[in-house]
Amino acid sequence: MASKYSYLDLVDQVDTFPNAATHPVAFAEKTAPYSRFVYLSHTIGYIIPIVLDALKDTTLSGDWWEIKPGVVSLKGDTVEERTRNIDETTRRWREANRFEVLSGWRNEKYTVYAPKSTPCFHMERCATPLFGVLTYGSHMTVYIPATATTPMRIWVPRRAAGKATYPSMLDNTVAGGMGDGIDPFECIVKEAGEEASFSESYVRQHAKAVGFVSYFYVRHEEAGGEVGLLQPEVEYCYDMIVGEDGPIPKPFDGEVAEHILMTVEEVEANLRARKFKPNCAAVMLDFFVRHGILREDNDKDFLEIYSRLHRRHEFPTR
Amino acid sequence: MASKYSYLDLVDQVDTFPNAATHPVAFAEKTAPYSRFVYLSHTIGYIIPIVLDALKDTTLSGDWWEIKPGVVSLKGDTVEERTRNIDETTRRWREANRFEVLSGWRNEKYTVYAPKSTPCFHMERCATPLFGVLTYGSHMTVYIPATATTPMRIWVPRRAAGKATYPSMLDNTVAGGMGDGIDPFECIVKEAGEEASFSESYVRQHAKAVGFVSYFYVRHEEAGGEVGLLQPEVEYCYDMIVGEDGPIPKPFDGEVAEHILMTVEEVEANLRARKFKPNCAAVMLDFFVRHGILREDNDKDFLEIYSRLHRRHEFPTR
Repeated sequence: MASKYSYLDLVDQVDTFPNAATHPVAFAEKTAPYSRFVYLSHTIGYIIPIVLDALKDTTLSGDWWEIKPGVVSLKGDTVEERTRNIDETTRRWREANRFEVLSGWRNEKYTVYAPKSTPCFHMERCATPLFGVLTYGSHMTVYIPATATTPMRIWVPRRAAGKATYPSMLDNTVAGGMGDGIDPFECIVKEAGEEASFSESYVRQHAKAVGFVSYFYVRHEEAGGEVGLLQPEVEYCYDMIVGEDGPIPKPFDGEVAEHILMTVEEVEANLRARKFKPNCAAVMLDFFVRHGILREDNDKDFLEIYSRLHRRHEFPTR
Repeated sequence: MASKYSYLDLVDQVDTFPNAATHPVAFAEKTAPYSRFVYLSHTIGYIIPIVLDALKDTTLSGDWWEIKPGVVSLKGDTVEERTRNIDETTRRWREANRFEVLSGWRNEKYTVYAPKSTPCFHMERCATPLFGVLTYGSHMTVYIPATATTPMRIWVPRRAAGKATYPSMLDNTVAGGMGDGIDPFECIVKEAGEEASFSESYVRQHAKAVGFVSYFYVRHEEAGGEVGLLQPEVEYCYDMIVGEDGPIPKPFDGEVAEHILMTVEEVEANLRARKFKPNCAAVMLDFFVRHGILREDNDKDFLEIYSRLHRRHEFPTR
């Protein structure tokens, strides 16, 4: 197969932030201009210079934020106070059109945890890359297994042309961000109905948890909004088998243009042509490893690819 | 189930070396007394003080090694020269009974790579932990899938009581270290015959590559030899399905006392009681994640467990 990009290129595209353990010099260079976003003794994100400037410029910011050299923290003794302070900050920025990324305001809250497993505050989903905080989602790959006479085929949706982010790119069969008060499995059940019209009962019975991918993304232009915003993520992964006779995914909410049933070779060609949304490519590579398609004997970067797809973040997690 | 140890405890047991990205202070403290073992610009291992002392004490060591403050390198312009120099060194130590770990001399060579994918030198297997270099193995989990009426069951061997390392502990169905000139799949085919009497043709047809686990082990007493030796490893993982009617693993070479067919619950109980060899527990946890047994909703440490089981090493790899 003529291949433009290697699978390691796809990992480079989504796991862009240098790793302090393996690349200490690149990490030091990258983070030198940043402030740490901290809560107590925990680093929960990084603040890049354009965001630090905005914090300093914002009226009343002193009531909501404590800004010291290299370290920024949110004021507030309770989850509610911290949530209100970051909400007021980001709402003012939105009203002032301070950041393009805030034009994607969804009125959907994500939770930031610190210490581990403990909600520290909730914040508007589209504002999370301004603070470099860890966010979560769920992705599911729906496939028809190989038989003696037919090869494995995978259901691949094409995103709607009108989507604000990654229009017309290929995606995982079902995928969604994980907002407040929903767990990864419930998230995938909900999205499977909304994006692909799968019945709740089928998904509950057949979706199988198979791990996660995690990576530290630095936003490209195609993500929309400012380039260079920091987006560390964990995507919980599910596999779901369907038969030759269905069920068949069908667009429901207008986010998806069409669902295409692809052979593994077709998926590979589209991956290598960078037709997949970057983090969906990561989930697909993880699927390929678990299913014996991507192996040490057919990709010299196998060890690096699969380690980086399970990056250990320096932040507290759910 | 009454559980003595958590799954994170099992990861702590095998991924013991601090991570510079997430625990920079612990990493700095741990490595301060060590020298880096380097080749050109690559760090290929760590030299602990008792080994540095031995290098300095060894007659002719100056012909074979270059020792500078904090940095040690092997002399030699070719793979053959470097191989000979480390071989002479370790053979003298063995003759002088300098290190207990060398009493397990096997006349089996492992390859150290630098730069990536390029053999730098070969060395005696049992001496690798003295230099903290990355080694490789292959592990296979053989199981009978669940049916409508029977649960999944896994073939678990108990190591022979007379083994020098981890006697009588539980193991993965098939496992072995990867010596010179053999690739991970050929390694598992060979070991499947030697350890479990599986036919070559069955294994070639049914063993499925499913990724790897990687971790940085600091040797405990039960590993035999000196405590505190450094052992970063990658273990390639394979799954193999067998039917109710077989094939059945049978001891062949005396390394295994017996093969026990366990339910998932029995495996879990043995894991939590620390009856498994530590790195075999790691492989089993990876199996549990891929098969939906260990999930985010039943273990609060899920993200940390699975990230750490795919540690990105700071060394060049195969």
